[in-house]
Amino acid sequence: MPEELANQEVTLFVPVPLRDKQKTPYLCDLRVSVLEKNLLGVHVMFKVAILTISDKGSKGEREDASGPLIREMIKDLPGEVIHYEIIPDETDVIIEALKKCSDQMRADLVLTTGGTGLSPRDVTPDATLKVIEKEVPGFSEAMRAESLKKTPHAMISRAVVGIRGSCLIVNLPGSPKGVKENLGVILPALPHALSKLKGDPSECAQE
Amino acid sequence: MPEELANQEVTLFVPVPLRDKQKTPYLCDLRVSVLEKNLLGVHVMFKVAILTISDKGSKGEREDASGPLIREMIKDLPGEVIHYEIIPDETDVIIEALKKCSDQMRADLVLTTGGTGLSPRDVTPDATLKVIEKEVPGFSEAMRAESLKKTPHAMISRAVVGIRGSCLIVNLPGSPKGVKENLGVILPALPHALSKLKGDPSECAQE
Amino acid sequence: MPEELANQEVTLFVPVPLRDKQKTPYLCDLRVSVLEKNLLGVHVMFKVAILTISDKGSKGEREDASGPLIREMIKDLPGEVIHYEIIPDETDVIIEALKKCSDQMRADLVLTTGGTGLSPRDVTPDATLKVIEKEVPGFSEAMRAESLKKTPHAMISRAVVGIRGSCLIVNLPGSPKGVKENLGVILPALPHALSKLKGDPSECAQE
Repeated sequence: MPEELANQEVTLFVPVPLRDKQKTPYLCDLRVSVLEKNLLGVHVMFKVAILTISDKGSKGEREDASGPLIREMIKDLPGEVIHYEIIPDETDVIIEALKKCSDQMRADLVLTTGGTGLSPRDVTPDATLKVIEKEVPGFSEAMRAESLKKTPHAMISRAVVGIRGSCLIVNLPGSPKGVKENLGVILPALPHALSKLKGDPSECAQE
Repeated sequence: MPEELANQEVTLFVPVPLRDKQKTPYLCDLRVSVLEKNLLGVHVMFKVAILTISDKGSKGEREDASGPLIREMIKDLPGEVIHYEIIPDETDVIIEALKKCSDQMRADLVLTTGGTGLSPRDVTPDATLKVIEKEVPGFSEAMRAESLKKTPHAMISRAVVGIRGSCLIVNLPGSPKGVKENLGVILPALPHALSKLKGDPSECAQE
Repeated sequence: MPEELANQEVTLFVPVPLRDKQKTPYLCDLRVSVLEKNLLGVHVMFKVAILTISDKGSKGEREDASGPLIREMIKDLPGEVIHYEIIPDETDVIIEALKKCSDQMRADLVLTTGGTGLSPRDVTPDATLKVIEKEVPGFSEAMRAESLKKTPHAMISRAVVGIRGSCLIVNLPGSPKGVKENLGVILPALPHALSKLKGDPSECAQE
């Protein structure tokens, strides 16, 4: 593909399945990044892993409603869920699972649900801090600020968001209600964030 | 007490002195946790320590208005003030005082006032970061965001909130006005937060 | 100057060039600190360094619009720009530049622009975290919260604000639009913050 096509909107080459409900910001990001990735021959579907972190869930004592809700909520992202697992609230187990998703499975995005509170067994943020190389505080700040409009308990969430290699790891609360509120806040920023993490050199947001 | 009573509102068993001004969220949390603690035979009054951190205050050169204000503001919490002390802005002294309150006195909540700014003698957040095991950023974010609606100077506060063992340590600004604004923001979330820290297994916020 | 003048508004002694557009909060802060500094014979102009962090800019492949914009925006501060440099997105280079500005040039304020995002070459916050002694999270929280009202992409900024010695280091985004929005948020708090950092003992915000 000739160089001079790089900054034009050549939607013909976009391999992302567009959906009815897809919103404008997604589309904009995709057009640019997809085009440039194609020049490099890279496939643009983001690989997503979902980790439900719950003692009861991992023992089969409670049905996981949050994991499936995440899968439903991200279906408009240009991504595919490559992994879904329910693990107990054990620091070592969480660390291993996060490493496996990012390093071996090469996930672009790991969404965890559960273990973000103040109970002694809530260790997800602590495990996450041990595996990320850079923190992205704006995501967790935005999630808490939005939830805080609904309930003062939102300030209890210690959710961490950070980067390991080129993988974005996002802690979400354990409850379906918390997942819905929090993931809803960051969803519009995810396509751009993931494109940037993969090295997309476009500067569409820099004007 | 029979198991089947556990999820009912058996207010008869609540040992917490209810007050006129007590707001609904407190009441809700208390009913649930108190009930469950009673099943285990645990007393639910939270132990609170207040530390005023001020060079002038510790030398008797300035009367401490913020410490007494904190005591007044938390009187609707199901807690008792087990310790109140005025100490100078010295990192080592603050660290020792925080450890004494959490480890020896077994305080559930330590509220500090003072030393959160940018002056060379402001070291409370730095001392706090040295003794906590987990940070709870949502509390400090919420306090600053609320204060910011009043004055841009709110962004100067470096207040830290975190956990040491099962003790929640909260930095508040030094001025009575700052204490009033900031403590007012987190007060509605404290009962639930302290219950969770003590291992309360209820999931009332998880729906 | 006699001691009894210290708490009066002796504007006659203020050596700061007042400007037409100077807003009230600046003036208030200045009166107090200037007066007290004069007692000690210290000059009160803040020394500001501007660092544009951009691979393309440092190679002359892109004109730097953000550096000059910062210079324009801070012209109402009682400060003088003592240094302006365009450097590449290299961790070591950024660390050296930050140290040079704060330690050798004795800048009171270093404003960086660029490298705050999620791209692999964005390392400004990471370099900043390596040189600061204390973080001032309220500044970055306030900037992101304000930008978030305009675009969800604001949460991608990993901008860090912190203190090295008595120097305040502030990361701003790379784009002129981002600089305008973010610097505009913290500008009203800067004179008070810088006065406090220099050891101004006034307590005008403590009532």
